[in-house]
Order: sequence, then C-alpha cells, then structure tokens
Amino acid sequence: MIRYPVDLSLFAGNQHSPSFFSLQRSMKRPELQLHDFCIPVNPYFPPPETFNRFRDNLETLLKYYPSPNEELAHLLGEVIHVQAASLVMANGSTELISWISHLLVNETLVTTIPTFGRWTDYPKALGKNVVLYRRRPEVDHRLDIGEFIDLVRTSKAKAVALCNPNNPTGAVTSKADLMDLINALEDLDVIIVDESFIDFVQETDVPTLAREAIERENVIVIKSLGKNFGLHGIRAGYAITNPTWASGLREVLPRWNVNSLAEALLLELRQHWEEYEVSRRQVIRDARYLKSQISTIPELTVYPSQANFVYCRLDSAIEGVEWRNRLLQERGCFVRECGNKLGSDQQHFRIASRPKEQIDLLMNATRETLAQRESVLV
Amino acid sequence: MIRYPVDLSLFAGNQHSPSFFSLQRSMKRPELQLHDFCIPVNPYFPPPETFNRFRDNLETLLKYYPSPNEELAHLLGEVIHVQAASLVMANGSTELISWISHLLVNETLVTTIPTFGRWTDYPKALGKNVVLYRRRPEVDHRLDIGEFIDLVRTSKAKAVALCNPNNPTGAVTSKADLMDLINALEDLDVIIVDESFIDFVQETDVPTLAREAIERENVIVIKSLGKNFGLHGIRAGYAITNPTWASGLREVLPRWNVNSLAEALLLELRQHWEEYEVSRRQVIRDARYLKSQISTIPELTVYPSQANFVYCRLDSAIEGVEWRNRLLQERGCFVRECGNKLGSDQQHFRIASRPKEQIDLLMNATRETLAQRESVLV
Repeated sequence: MIRYPVDLSLFAGNQHSPSFFSLQRSMKRPELQLHDFCIPVNPYFPPPETFNRFRDNLETLLKYYPSPNEELAHLLGEVIHVQAASLVMANGSTELISWISHLLVNETLVTTIPTFGRWTDYPKALGKNVVLYRRRPEVDHRLDIGEFIDLVRTSKAKAVALCNPNNPTGAVTSKADLMDLINALEDLDVIIVDESFIDFVQETDVPTLAREAIERENVIVIKSLGKNFGLHGIRAGYAITNPTWASGLREVLPRWNVNSLAEALLLELRQHWEEYEVSRRQVIRDARYLKSQISTIPELTVYPSQANFVYCRLDSAIEGVEWRNRLLQERGCFVRECGNKLGSDQQHFRIASRPKEQIDLLMNATRETLAQRESVLV
Repeated sequence: MIRYPVDLSLFAGNQHSPSFFSLQRSMKRPELQLHDFCIPVNPYFPPPETFNRFRDNLETLLKYYPSPNEELAHLLGEVIHVQAASLVMANGSTELISWISHLLVNETLVTTIPTFGRWTDYPKALGKNVVLYRRRPEVDHRLDIGEFIDLVRTSKAKAVALCNPNNPTGAVTSKADLMDLINALEDLDVIIVDESFIDFVQETDVPTLAREAIERENVIVIKSLGKNFGLHGIRAGYAITNPTWASGLREVLPRWNVNSLAEALLLELRQHWEEYEVSRRQVIRDARYLKSQISTIPELTVYPSQANFVYCRLDSAIEGVEWRNRLLQERGCFVRECGNKLGSDQQHFRIASRPKEQIDLLMNATRETLAQRESVLV
C-alpha cells in the first residue's frame, strides 16, 4: 500500500540518486516525513546552540562576503590542528575532486570499483582514461595492495584515487598498506586519498594519511566537513597536502568559494570540539548496531564495513529497484540502491547508519516488505 | 580620534580588500558596528519573511544535500524566465569566472581596466596572456568599441571578457555597441559579458545580452545572484549561454556546487519577485542620491556611473590610503580604495550606494575627515 506517494520518476536517468529534498517535495504532503538512510551523515552534530547562533546571526552571515580561502585555512587549521599552509578549504569535497582531476590528473587515473561515483565518472567526462581495480566480494572488497600497484604499473598511470574507507563498501585499507602504496608509488604525479568517512572507522588511531600528505610531494588527502559535522547542505570540505600544492590550489580555486555559514561552522567547531568527539563515538556505536541488526536479515548478504554505513546484497529472488521503491513508498525509508555505480548493480544497497530507533524502524520495514514479497511469490 | 579600532594590518599584502567580517572582528568590540560602503549590495532584499522562513527551516536546509545543478537550472529558469537548457547555476559568479577561464580561454584574453580583479588576475595566474584595454577618465571610462575590436585583432586574442556595467567605474556599454562588438567578433572562441550589476543600470530596458547569449555560439553572460538579492554570503550566481555550452558547463562544474540556502533562495524568488522589483528601483534611486551628494564634495572628482556604486578620484593633496583609514577608524565607514586594481591607484575609490540615511552619514564623515585634514595642512 502506497503511504508515501513519492514520484519515482525522479530516479530515472540519473547517475546519482535524486536528492532527499526533491523526493520529499514530490509527495506534495509536507506532513509526511521521509526517513533518510541514503546519505551517511552525523545526526548528533552540531548541537542546538550552533543552530541558534546561526539563526541569530543569519542576516549578517548572509548579507556579507565570507572570508577568502587563505583566512579560512587559518581558521580550519586551529580546529583540526594542522598547519594552515597545508590546508585548502573548499565548497564540499566534490569541488576538490573536480579541480584536482583537472589540474593534477594527466591522462590515466587508477581507482577502485565500486566507489564514489565522482571518482569514476568525472575524470572520464574530462576525457581522462580511468582504469578500474575491481574490489571482490569474496575478500570483503578489501584492496590487495600488491595487485593494485601492479595495475598502476601495467596501465602506466601517473595518478591514483582511493577512498578510505571505501564508499559504498565500507572496506578500510590499513595504514601499513597505505604506507606501502605511497612508498611504492613515489614517482606518480599524484596519489589522492579521499578520507570523507574516516572519522567513523574507529574511536582512536584513525588511519589517516594527513601527516604523509603534508610531508610527501605527491599525496593529497581530501575530506568532507559536511558529512562529519552533520551539515551536508552547507557544502564544505578541505584538502591536506604539501604547502606548495596547497598554495597553488588556493590560488586556482574560485575566490570566496566557501560560503559564510561554512565559515561560521569553523568558528563553532573551535567551541564544540568535545561535543563533536562525543557525537562521533555515538555514530560509531550506532553503525555497530546497524551492522548487527541487518546481519540478521536472511535475504541480505552484509559485507564487513568500518564506516557509518553498510553495503549489502539483496537475494536475487527479489528485484532491487522494486524493493527500494516499496521501502520508499510503503514505509518512507530511502536507501541507496547502487545500480548506477560501476562495479555494483541494483541488487546492492548502501544503508547509512542512523540513531537506534530509526534503525529499528528500518529493520521492521525491511522485514515486512521482504516477508510481504515472499507471500506474494508463494 | 580612533573610535573604531580596526586592525589596519588586514589591508597589507592583499590583492583584494579584507572582508567586512574580518575588519569587524578585528575590533573585538561587537557593540561597534562598521558601515559597509565597500560591497555594492541590495539592502532592501530579501524581505523579512524570507529570513524567517530560512530560520524556520534551517536544520532541514543544512542537514540535507541541495539538488544537483540540472534541477537548480529548472528552478532558476522559472524565476528569471529563461529556458533551463541555457542556464548554469554556480557557487557565485567567481566560480564561473574560474571555470570559464580554464575551459574556454585559450592563450590570450582581452579585457578592460580598471575592472573586476578576477578578470585580470585570475587568467594571468593560470598562465594566460591578458591584454588590457585602458579605459580613460577623459571619456568617463567609456569603451570605444572600434578601438577595442582593433586591440582584439592586433593581439590575435580569441577571448574577450567585459563587465557591463563596468566595475569599479560604473560605465555602461550600450546594447547597440555590444551588438556591434559581438557581430564583429563572431569568429572568437568566447565573448564573456559579466552583467553582475546590470539590474541597477536603469528601471526598464536593461541592456542585457541574455537573449544573444542563448542564440549565439560564442557568448556567455554571467551574473551574480548574491549582489542583486542582498545575500552575498550565500554564494550564488549563474551563466546564460547556448544550450550546448550550458550542458557542457553543468557536466564539468562540481556536482552539488550550490548550497541548500541558495536553492531555498530560488524558491523564495518565485514568491517575492514583485518585492525584488520594488527593491531594485529603490536601489537605483539611492544610487542617484549618492551621485548627487558626492558630486558636491570639492576634493572628489566623480565619474558618471550607471551602477549602484560610484567611482571617484581624491585630490592628490590628500593621500588615499590615509583617508580610507581615517574614514574607517574615526567614522566606521568602510570604502573601497582601488590602489590594488590594475589601471587604478590609491587616489581612486569605489563607493557603494546605501539607503539615504547612511549616505548622509558617509557624506558628513567625508566632509569632516577632509576638512580636518586641510586644517592640519594649514
């Protein structure tokens, strides 16, 4: 029974899923609230005081120019304790993906699939050659560093992009493996590590390459601020790299690329870092709960994930797109069906972690839509 | 006497003026409010209801992704009555300047000086050859189309960028002259017309090239949304061009380049267009008042402007930087000293129009700081 009359045509012909907004709007029923398990976001941050301060200062924030990116690098540096000279603030991590693909990827890029679509589709749209390392479900989509390096060498690529943890699979490459990789590929033009979800890998000893990015000549780490801090709509991300590249990127990026709310967010982070840490640990606990719960669904094969989302395969007896649509229209739950991702198909789903009560809601919806389906089949 | 202890070192070593925010913050005296005559912005828009709606929906807006740029082009098209296929939404007009400079400007660009710094500095930073047409005060900085075309031909440039009205001079090139220009330069790779301030040229018959941009193969009009709609901090702008280029630009721009508040602004504009028109006409009246008042100051030579700012030259007996600093520290008035603009110098100022009472305040501050100066000299 359709209780959420979402316009499903919004899914047609898109490389990416439609936005939560457009699905919500398409119902023309503001009283019905969809549940978003598509975008992995920290639901515990920022604290209410941050929104209150944004509200109080909204006119001033929106009526004046933000600071240029050199100044923002200083503000960001104070927050994350990285030297400003190595930082580049951006309008979301996709702005960095775009500029880095233009400026630093010559000819051939090697990346892994399935992965974040921008790393496969965007360089290709620019006419670059994209060579794909296929992650295998038999080894839980883990990267074999030796095989990967061999592929780089045989393809004669001078550029590499890796998501760590990988999106959508949630597989993490260890710090030791990454060090082997950057040591073996010192001669490359650029090694990009997209660490957008790394804060949620584990409570301590997060396997970031930030330090190496500052010290090496060919490593860039990029990261989303929106995903970590619960504010996707603001558009904010950053790069960490050696000072020469950082200053070059700051020169070339559009001036005032970051909006005033993103600047205000940096000021908030200075004051609320401890709350962020608490929220981050809660997201990690929620993700563990999601993984434990979803593993009990017989129709889903769940792969090990160290991110704040899980990647799973739906039994082939049930059509993936149909299940996605029913979860959405019957139960108001929006999950990411991965049929438009290279190296994936419509039987694969990425499900973002949310607070426990929403996970429970999704699990009920999952069980019931799958059970109903079976009874129809019988 | 210093009543506004602004940190003047913020002006050091910048190609651009420091932001209003950083000047304000540098005083560490939130109770002292600076007056901004630096950035030309519409102070009558948006209406309070818009800010209220932004406040009410702030968490939802900031916690979800905005729509991708194809969808935003549709929303924008409904507002400005231009076909979506010819529109590209961007994160401020500087994002468009950056990408267009990268993608469409080959080798040599001709532009005029003084002009918006991004058109001179940015292509140069990319290693392009920038050829400068110098606007002359004797003819009120008007463009001589014949001379300009000759310069394009002798420099063998294939790209042209023009601000209309020009910033900072406020000089307008007529539609007839622009038609001569685009007809004569049909063989160029690209003709960019930056119409960021065109809404304030006159009440009706605004000399936009929007129609030609849609129909021609080599014309792009770019425009700021923030400046017109009083929301610089949001970062929003757009391009109008032929559908082939528009779809190519949308492909290459970073996905989700526009933040959720900019998307929400488009929805507001649909509802409040009549209020925008009223505000636009009021800005034009204010600008006329500013021009009439400032022309009475003997130490300032004021050039004819058809924009919402004026460009003027300070008598050489008084040092420009010193006057700027005194206006700021003694009277809290921030004006744009144009010493860092090619084709200008520190004796030249751009002064943005504001509501009448603020113009009166600035005129008093101007008279008194200049009179005081003379008495010191005597």
